[in-house]
Amino acid sequence: MSVEKLQRYREQMRTELDKVVDFWQKYSHDTQYGGFFTCIGKDGKIYDELKYVWLQGRQVWMYCRLYRTMERFNKPEILEAAKSGGAFLRRFARIPNSGSPWKCAFCLTRDGKALKVQRTIFSECFYVMAMDELARVTGDKDMQAEAAQMMDQLVHWLTEARSGEEVDKYREVGGWCVKQILQHLQRGGTAILESVSSEGKELPGCEGRLQNPGHALEAGWFLLQYGLENGDQELQRTAVDKFMEIPFLTGWDKEHGGLLYFLDVDGYCPTQLEWSMKLWWPHCEALIAYLMAYSHTKEPALLDRFSQVYDYTFSHFSDAENGEWFGYLTQQGKVTLDFKGGPFKGFFHVPRCLYMCEKILDSILNKQET
Amino acid sequence: MSVEKLQRYREQMRTELDKVVDFWQKYSHDTQYGGFFTCIGKDGKIYDELKYVWLQGRQVWMYCRLYRTMERFNKPEILEAAKSGGAFLRRFARIPNSGSPWKCAFCLTRDGKALKVQRTIFSECFYVMAMDELARVTGDKDMQAEAAQMMDQLVHWLTEARSGEEVDKYREVGGWCVKQILQHLQRGGTAILESVSSEGKELPGCEGRLQNPGHALEAGWFLLQYGLENGDQELQRTAVDKFMEIPFLTGWDKEHGGLLYFLDVDGYCPTQLEWSMKLWWPHCEALIAYLMAYSHTKEPALLDRFSQVYDYTFSHFSDAENGEWFGYLTQQGKVTLDFKGGPFKGFFHVPRCLYMCEKILDSILNKQET
Repeated sequence: MSVEKLQRYREQMRTELDKVVDFWQKYSHDTQYGGFFTCIGKDGKIYDELKYVWLQGRQVWMYCRLYRTMERFNKPEILEAAKSGGAFLRRFARIPNSGSPWKCAFCLTRDGKALKVQRTIFSECFYVMAMDELARVTGDKDMQAEAAQMMDQLVHWLTEARSGEEVDKYREVGGWCVKQILQHLQRGGTAILESVSSEGKELPGCEGRLQNPGHALEAGWFLLQYGLENGDQELQRTAVDKFMEIPFLTGWDKEHGGLLYFLDVDGYCPTQLEWSMKLWWPHCEALIAYLMAYSHTKEPALLDRFSQVYDYTFSHFSDAENGEWFGYLTQQGKVTLDFKGGPFKGFFHVPRCLYMCEKILDSILNKQET
Repeated sequence: MSVEKLQRYREQMRTELDKVVDFWQKYSHDTQYGGFFTCIGKDGKIYDELKYVWLQGRQVWMYCRLYRTMERFNKPEILEAAKSGGAFLRRFARIPNSGSPWKCAFCLTRDGKALKVQRTIFSECFYVMAMDELARVTGDKDMQAEAAQMMDQLVHWLTEARSGEEVDKYREVGGWCVKQILQHLQRGGTAILESVSSEGKELPGCEGRLQNPGHALEAGWFLLQYGLENGDQELQRTAVDKFMEIPFLTGWDKEHGGLLYFLDVDGYCPTQLEWSMKLWWPHCEALIAYLMAYSHTKEPALLDRFSQVYDYTFSHFSDAENGEWFGYLTQQGKVTLDFKGGPFKGFFHVPRCLYMCEKILDSILNKQET
């Protein structure tokens, strides 16, 4: 593929990222109570004032990452928005009466009252990501310490589920996570399954047979990145040949294009009502995965995969009229939920994808240009 | 509408009910461990062995009701299947270590081990319905007492949430339930909302604005039946004019036909991914509601509604090839989950609808024929 084509991709990523950041700056900031609205209609109108903690944390993280690592976003208004979101989170996300001073709510009212709590650890994960990035840009040592303490708590919760194994450092946690992810490669390396037993075996029935191509692809680029950082070539190959290849072969809809949301590995119909829909985020993860894999292997087939996903994604999800992306299409590719932000769609997957793709294209093109 | 047309409807209901009962008798009985498989593919193949307690209880109830009140189902094999399901439930559904001897699991393994427990009371409701009907056909006094005891426990759980009000008898519980349902009629009687506050006020945001036409219609025929039994004409009118009329006006898809699954009362896009799908059970509830309302009011418009729902339902959900009904269609009416039974679709809504419609048509035609 020509340098010109890669340059066009980069230009498109850059333009789109600017538009997406504009959209969220314009519509999501709650200047009265702080934090971010995330339930935002197709034209920017707020249709619910609830504040989902995952999405608050993700938006702080994303703003800070953009501010810190992309020159054109190194602007006071981005920093101020991130700080406002961080202050809101620190003030309201945790629910001290829950038995642990670190437990976070899942969902808050506009003015910060806890409404719903989940048993999972994801609110806390995104809280850590937000505080860690925010501490990097502000240099706030207290905040950094708070992020580290909550991370320790998360590691402790995970450790409890790990039958007594000791975890001392984040490096070990990383290695342990990689092992956990690799357990999802099942059936002699021919399938990535969404849920496996704690011993790494396939679970019985529908639950065990479920495949989620978006999660497999996301795990794929996590593994590739980890493999690159640690010089682990076998892990790099597993990431590309298994976690990126299998979900494409099983999950790409040959009739209508796009990635299906769920599949049953034995070909039964999944019981999730949304199984055949096309969601924005698996496509974001696919773009990152294939471009990252191409940039390290230079295998043309991986760039072809990227192009194929790119064509579908930009022609179906991106909203030329009002900016940002639609999130939810029918199997046939028609927009069926027309909002831009909702309980699970915030300022995260789209800008993270555009940001990472732009960075990767920069690095490929810089090498070619020098 | 002519008597001939009503007779054709009755004939169709009867034929379809026979086919549906055949399907579940043929494929759902677990002769090894007792109880019923409910995850059944389009052609009868079991794709998961999990046993959902809601669906076990519903199937026992339905078999008993058919056995007890329809002569052609008064057959030993129906009774035996119901008893086998009842024995399985009594042996495995309750989880005594949960803090209450009456708490039931949501989902069991094939051999009866509890896998999942919900915080709601629906497993227990269907357990009561199953035991009560089974006791009626078997004359088993112990079982009847057990049903009554669990019902008392349910009433107690509900009472706890009712700020000290006393409930002495089922009659009072019935009246209280009617009051609860009527609280969902909001906005000056122009909307039926799926969730309201415990004080009967509209909740903020998406949650408060959500409409579920199927639940409104089901509540409609509950209310109509209660109003008829208690000679409450105002309640009868509310049931028909509000709980049956509003969901049709808001929920019927004028472009593609069929009832949408969820809507936002202010016209925003619901956040439920499946909002625009067509599910089998709201159509079952609509058929019961409009036919029941017609049989009592003789308003031709209600029979027209029934006909409209009937035409869509029988042409889209019923599977001429393998029997039983598909459960899940796209907005455009295409089958998108092709199984006949799943975690929430068992031997319940379809046969209950066919059974009730046949009975109602019997009573209309008998009056006309005499």
